[in-house]
Amino acid sequence: MKIAIQGELGSFSDEAARSFLPGHTVVPCAVSLEVFDKLDSNTVAAALIPIENSLAGSVAEHYDLLLAREIFIQREFRLRIRHNLIAAPGVRLQDVREVLSHPVALAQCRDFFQRHPRIRAVPFYDTAGSVKRIVGERLRHAAAIAGKQAAAVYRGSILKRNLEDDKQNFTRFFLVRKQKRILPGANKTSVAFSLHNVPGALFKALSVFSLRDINLTKIESRPLRGRPWEYVFYVDLLRGDDEPARNALGHLAEISDFVKVLGVYRAA
Amino acid sequence: MKIAIQGELGSFSDEAARSFLPGHTVVPCAVSLEVFDKLDSNTVAAALIPIENSLAGSVAEHYDLLLAREIFIQREFRLRIRHNLIAAPGVRLQDVREVLSHPVALAQCRDFFQRHPRIRAVPFYDTAGSVKRIVGERLRHAAAIAGKQAAAVYRGSILKRNLEDDKQNFTRFFLVRKQKRILPGANKTSVAFSLHNVPGALFKALSVFSLRDINLTKIESRPLRGRPWEYVFYVDLLRGDDEPARNALGHLAEISDFVKVLGVYRAA
Repeated sequence: MKIAIQGELGSFSDEAARSFLPGHTVVPCAVSLEVFDKLDSNTVAAALIPIENSLAGSVAEHYDLLLAREIFIQREFRLRIRHNLIAAPGVRLQDVREVLSHPVALAQCRDFFQRHPRIRAVPFYDTAGSVKRIVGERLRHAAAIAGKQAAAVYRGSILKRNLEDDKQNFTRFFLVRKQKRILPGANKTSVAFSLHNVPGALFKALSVFSLRDINLTKIESRPLRGRPWEYVFYVDLLRGDDEPARNALGHLAEISDFVKVLGVYRAA
Repeated sequence: MKIAIQGELGSFSDEAARSFLPGHTVVPCAVSLEVFDKLDSNTVAAALIPIENSLAGSVAEHYDLLLAREIFIQREFRLRIRHNLIAAPGVRLQDVREVLSHPVALAQCRDFFQRHPRIRAVPFYDTAGSVKRIVGERLRHAAAIAGKQAAAVYRGSILKRNLEDDKQNFTRFFLVRKQKRILPGANKTSVAFSLHNVPGALFKALSVFSLRDINLTKIESRPLRGRPWEYVFYVDLLRGDDEPARNALGHLAEISDFVKVLGVYRAA
């Protein structure tokens, strides 16, 4: 199966694909829109997209695209984000004077830079791209911070593992496909719905779940594009496709402008 | 007054500071933590931080820091994000072969790249930084995408304005200070609270607002660090410091693990 990801080979999306979906072909795409276009045109069978990081928050663009496109979440995965210090082969830690990586990754490895004050953090546009560069140019005094998959892809050597300050660093990924199919064991549902901004509208909407003792694990509001004062809400419910969930969603449809089920899948 | 921002001079935070708080001194900081540390140590009197972009979503790190630090939101601003094509003086559009910018900015200017297929988009770590680079190195075949403030700071020339595909591109900024002070005309309140993940907990919590006809303009849940299955919620209410709001927050405190008022301010 061909699986599209956003980012280069060696990115955390690539690492997630290798960990959770081994044996498939990963198709790297420069931007997220390309990922979803490849799915639309059946160039790939599926896409693996990050949706939320426990430290950095939600990936708004992916929520927007899940809403806009005719696609369906089929599986959920949780990848522990581990940052590694990676250099060209032969380079030792004591040679390193600067470390390249994406600003978010640099910010998540503050302790390392405090313990090594002679090493300078240099922002780069991408984690895997920084490894590609320092290994490709055989830099002797530079290293990069990225996932282990980047070291494997670009043949860098790992000088240090688990550089991240906060070990509670996880990214949720969705495997999305064009087919609306619910796999056995599905116990979680992601839904988007929109409401007019009148007092109590959200309270009413959430009552459809609380009346049925359905637990929510996520809620997020976003302004609806081009429609000021209207909002789209993204919620995750801890229910699969059973009668209470179907009743709740029917009830929600009565009081919302629209309801879209983004997927029904097994919780990671 | 000295105002700290995250990012270089010429960034959108700098542009927001010049537009909404003219005549003050902007203090650029490499990372957000440094912004909040400068506020803590009274090195600056205030900080201006982006909290949410209408297309890219919330800035999770800033929400976390608002929760963790003893600071208070005093004002809210909304900046229309306008992307410009900026080059070294003398460079013409027909000379440009590649355009550097932050990946998010590049993704927001897709139409431009489709209309100019011979121009390549090159990811760079920062919008203002890309202007600094192409002007500083006097590149003849490159340009950058950034706000107009970057052109002013680094003396680049603007080849094209309003490159962004979606004109509904706004960023909300907060002016935060150590003093807990409510300015006249305050009509909006930002609150964080945490709940145990039991069915209906959020529904109960929101009832404190809906029972008093208090309107919410934003809600967002995030996992609480280091405490699995507990969540912190961020909500904005369209009320200042009046009796119904105080009653609602008292009521919320009864049913939440904690409630923190992040600020009471006038809606932008």
